[in-house]
Amino acid sequence: MAVYTLVDDDALDAFLTEYDLGAARSFKGIAEGVENSNYYLETERGRYILTLFEKRVDAGDLPYFIGLKQHLAAKGFPCPEPILGRDGAALRTLCGRPAIIVSFLDGLSPRRPNREHCRGIGAALARMHLALADFEMQRPNALGPGSFRALWKTCRSGAEALQPGLEDEINADLDAVTAAQGQSSALPRGTIHADLFPDNAFFLGNDFSGIIDFYFACSDALAYDIAICLNAWAFDDVGSSSGLQYAYSHGAALLAGYQSVRPLEAVEQAALPVLCRTAALRFFLTRMVDWTSTPADALVRPKNPLEYAQRLRFHREAKDASSYGL
Amino acid sequence: MAVYTLVDDDALDAFLTEYDLGAARSFKGIAEGVENSNYYLETERGRYILTLFEKRVDAGDLPYFIGLKQHLAAKGFPCPEPILGRDGAALRTLCGRPAIIVSFLDGLSPRRPNREHCRGIGAALARMHLALADFEMQRPNALGPGSFRALWKTCRSGAEALQPGLEDEINADLDAVTAAQGQSSALPRGTIHADLFPDNAFFLGNDFSGIIDFYFACSDALAYDIAICLNAWAFDDVGSSSGLQYAYSHGAALLAGYQSVRPLEAVEQAALPVLCRTAALRFFLTRMVDWTSTPADALVRPKNPLEYAQRLRFHREAKDASSYGL
Repeated sequence: MAVYTLVDDDALDAFLTEYDLGAARSFKGIAEGVENSNYYLETERGRYILTLFEKRVDAGDLPYFIGLKQHLAAKGFPCPEPILGRDGAALRTLCGRPAIIVSFLDGLSPRRPNREHCRGIGAALARMHLALADFEMQRPNALGPGSFRALWKTCRSGAEALQPGLEDEINADLDAVTAAQGQSSALPRGTIHADLFPDNAFFLGNDFSGIIDFYFACSDALAYDIAICLNAWAFDDVGSSSGLQYAYSHGAALLAGYQSVRPLEAVEQAALPVLCRTAALRFFLTRMVDWTSTPADALVRPKNPLEYAQRLRFHREAKDASSYGL
Repeated sequence: MAVYTLVDDDALDAFLTEYDLGAARSFKGIAEGVENSNYYLETERGRYILTLFEKRVDAGDLPYFIGLKQHLAAKGFPCPEPILGRDGAALRTLCGRPAIIVSFLDGLSPRRPNREHCRGIGAALARMHLALADFEMQRPNALGPGSFRALWKTCRSGAEALQPGLEDEINADLDAVTAAQGQSSALPRGTIHADLFPDNAFFLGNDFSGIIDFYFACSDALAYDIAICLNAWAFDDVGSSSGLQYAYSHGAALLAGYQSVRPLEAVEQAALPVLCRTAALRFFLTRMVDWTSTPADALVRPKNPLEYAQRLRFHREAKDASSYGL
């Protein structure tokens, strides 16, 4: 939810002359994405999104992200398609920043996903994994388990103040996730989205219409992407006085949707609880780092890490994939 | 530049059933306007802007603002046209807030207006004044000279710290503006926009395409609207080491554009310097209030009031309308 870089008229006009899109007819900063500046751009040719990459994104990763979207778009998978300039290049420079124009995607992000959305995103995730099976670029997961202890070191001292007993809980999660790394690394791998929250998915009514924001995409276990989605789509506090609970029917729908396109192997099914625990720990830790590094009187409060501590409690107790509705 | 109210899927769906617009195809928070939440809304029928009015806008004023836009739209003047619900009402409720849907306006706001933009906005302002000549609703100017001393009282103590000598300068401006109130109140009156900065105007290339954000509109001297525009459109720091200067050719173009549609009366021409001084003082004071009431370490710094102190220095020296290019 941010527009950081203001784009001058002359700069925009000059930028658009590098494309075959005609002149701008509308240009509005939009509250989408948290790492970049995004503009709704309408030209004589159609509707687009213009993105300027701000400093938090590593410029060296941009060819990977753009190549990934080009690969998906070429396979007909609905995602923002990078628009090429007259010289054939998608990645350009605007106002001193790396910038791209991508196609506009119809659809709305569900704020409270229903079961149909969960089934739809599960099936879409599997389609995305299959479409990326022959995508050859690689990017390590910078926020995989190998990073967890370093993250924990920077925020651990704030844990007990946030909730008594939390430090011991997280230590146990770290040990469990570390112990399972051999199991996780033997799973089918590929290119994963790694951040497929509802605000990165579009639907028209209940029908899936596209996925955006690939800036955490990386090479990892495919089932880990499902675990991230289960954390993001299948917990709610509906009908509960004690906080977030696993929404069994939502999770089951997501898994059924995925399996309708790509059935899970036995090793993936067996790994589901520890992958879900790993994913919850990843979001707990990054939120915890933001939480402890933000002054208490800041205008923008970071997201509360305790929502992921609640998820971790569920995952610790999960016996096997059947706990998730598989 | 803000989206304050997040609109739930179900709430949006329910809201749209009150209209004949079909289902939503896109819905994105946009960084337009500072007082309200604005969304780009696309439905099966077309493109719209959905606005939720936040607390800073007095709900009692909304029928005036909406009536004004309906009046302008009915006369073919390009502005956001309020869309009526099935029951014939434009003003409705969404997420507990007053809300309207208006038509989408093509065009871009010039960040650095050129002479053609200035001529265009002058002519558009005059067309708007004429189109509103038979608009019967009234709204007093809450930020007219009658409010200046009260505003000054709340921020005066910070003036010397901002710039030595500033307090005496502003005192003199207040006296001059007060002394001229008899002259100002005898000018031709009507409905004015009162906040027509470049970010509230749209152009396609150099061609004027519309005006937005009527939330300071009120009943006042028509020439005061021109004075506000001269302050907003005809000062720049191009080729100057000493800050903002009057951009004579821009101001002359704005005045010529206005007069090509509605020639100014002699009394309006004579009042131009003091009206410009009044307008600069109004923006100086409201910025100064924001400036002194915002903690120095706040994430969002308010706009610097000294930009208007620089304009005031020009207006104090202006002998007559010819200083502005008339």
